[in-house]
Amino acid sequence: MTTVFAPMASTYETPPAHLDPPTAADLVGPSLKQVEAVIHDLPDVEPDGLRQAVEVILNSGGKRIRPTIALLVAGMLGVDPPDSNAVHLAGAVEMLHTATLVHDDLIDGSLMRRGAATLNAAWTPAATVLTGDFLFAYAAKLASQANSVEAMSIFADTLCVMVAGELRQGFSDWETRSTHDDYLRRIYAKTASMFVLATTAMASVCGASARQTEALREFGREFGMGFQIIDDILDFTGEQRVVGKPVGSDLRRGLITLPTLRFAETHASDPDLVCALRGECDRATYDRLIDRIRRSDAIEASRREAAGAGQRAIQALGVFPESAHRAALFGLVDEYARRVV
Amino acid sequence: MTTVFAPMASTYETPPAHLDPPTAADLVGPSLKQVEAVIHDLPDVEPDGLRQAVEVILNSGGKRIRPTIALLVAGMLGVDPPDSNAVHLAGAVEMLHTATLVHDDLIDGSLMRRGAATLNAAWTPAATVLTGDFLFAYAAKLASQANSVEAMSIFADTLCVMVAGELRQGFSDWETRSTHDDYLRRIYAKTASMFVLATTAMASVCGASARQTEALREFGREFGMGFQIIDDILDFTGEQRVVGKPVGSDLRRGLITLPTLRFAETHASDPDLVCALRGECDRATYDRLIDRIRRSDAIEASRREAAGAGQRAIQALGVFPESAHRAALFGLVDEYARRVV
Repeated sequence: MTTVFAPMASTYETPPAHLDPPTAADLVGPSLKQVEAVIHDLPDVEPDGLRQAVEVILNSGGKRIRPTIALLVAGMLGVDPPDSNAVHLAGAVEMLHTATLVHDDLIDGSLMRRGAATLNAAWTPAATVLTGDFLFAYAAKLASQANSVEAMSIFADTLCVMVAGELRQGFSDWETRSTHDDYLRRIYAKTASMFVLATTAMASVCGASARQTEALREFGREFGMGFQIIDDILDFTGEQRVVGKPVGSDLRRGLITLPTLRFAETHASDPDLVCALRGECDRATYDRLIDRIRRSDAIEASRREAAGAGQRAIQALGVFPESAHRAALFGLVDEYARRVV
Repeated sequence: MTTVFAPMASTYETPPAHLDPPTAADLVGPSLKQVEAVIHDLPDVEPDGLRQAVEVILNSGGKRIRPTIALLVAGMLGVDPPDSNAVHLAGAVEMLHTATLVHDDLIDGSLMRRGAATLNAAWTPAATVLTGDFLFAYAAKLASQANSVEAMSIFADTLCVMVAGELRQGFSDWETRSTHDDYLRRIYAKTASMFVLATTAMASVCGASARQTEALREFGREFGMGFQIIDDILDFTGEQRVVGKPVGSDLRRGLITLPTLRFAETHASDPDLVCALRGECDRATYDRLIDRIRRSDAIEASRREAAGAGQRAIQALGVFPESAHRAALFGLVDEYARRVV
């Protein structure tokens, strides 16, 4: 196993310590089961149809990356096995993520998610809004069960950042959305903020020092940014069968992501691109443009940006001594980067 | 000034102590200004259009009854003037209330609220959903600033109860919605739960005893139930000019409230009523039925039920010694009941 984040991997005489660690699954498997238990321990949900719908959402194939990170952080901070506070916080993060998916699907009108029909496809908007609200409420409940005022405050701040980011995106014009700065701000609000929640709120729950907390913030931010860039690359390069949605679906619904931005740097006046940035193309134009972006060096440029974020994430953990949990976090970063190699 | 909650008011030789108290406004006016400051101290909100919309919602004539109750409870518990924790909690309750209004208006398609156009009337559903989410997030943020894990937990529980109640309502059939039990459950979830939040979370923040907390829970529940019943009566008896929406608007949009339920007890097979309970009438039928309910003794029966709740609320506060704050809470209950006299 090699790492895509070792900048000069070929110069290693022997693999560095982080190349063959116990996997995240080895380390947090049992605790993740406890997290599953708390996120499925829903309060009084009626009618049964709603409970079933919520169960489907919770079971629809998410990889539990966020609680996995949170639990590994707890382990790295010496809280191993994680206590009830840590388990509830990890559950809160996953539940918050799930809640945002429900409202996002409503907002962008998606009918499929993770290859399955979204709630939005089957239900009225009102029921979808309320189900998302319910999951938000339950996420807040789980967060409160971490028994830390500071963790709760970070949770609430994250929610503010995420929603404000969505709102800014909804109100911004296409010229703003076509800038790299705006892209970074968007993916921070949408994805990296929740990784930062997972790492820093757990730092608080586990009594980390200020220096450790800052390192974990950096790790969460960089991993989250890299993670979202990789997701955005896969939207172009993945097969519909694998990612569960049409190739280039982001661009088709007006979401301008890094591959498009990198392509734009060398094709600023390309008429296909101009109409796509404005969200005004017909289907054939989108098909043609997406195919061109897929085959362009914008993909490799985006990959390098993701790799840079991954490297910075790994470097941030340098303040922690070597440990199985730290190595598993390295492995996790690596595993995600590998998806676009 | 007489009280509608003195069961045998005519027998009083001299007015009891709670009849001429300093008003709530006298006691909490300055602290309410602090609450206003924290609820307007919104985090980074862009674009300006959103900030303005949120300001309009926050300024659109709410009477701040929930933070007023919360602050009076703090005063009754000896935290007077309220500290920063109490002020933030009071702000959280008002913000949560405001957030639910935004999603409610979306869910039931209202275009007017408090005589002003709702967000829903002017914006897309997506923007409305997100603005409501933003206010929920900010409410959670304010609640976390009360620096009490228990208050936060009550806050999250309340959110769960409210949303679950809305969902249950959305999924229930008209026969269920036509029962008194279901009505009580609905108004608890919709209104009284937030009054209970205001009183019990404040109890926690102010270090109340278990006995005091239980009394405050009872007070919050009964006041909240009475408050909502009064609102539901006003929907029938108020003038459109005053309540800011058409007379009988609840029933017209399928919401079965106490006056209709009381009317149904003596008109079970009335064809107008049957079609209204099913939500299938034409406008002329609604006009006729609403006029009949307005003139029926269902209104007086509903009034008695609200008065009973008000009396129980006042009785619950019997565990607290006489104080200006307690008297102001009595006065508040009385003032609301008076709206339907």
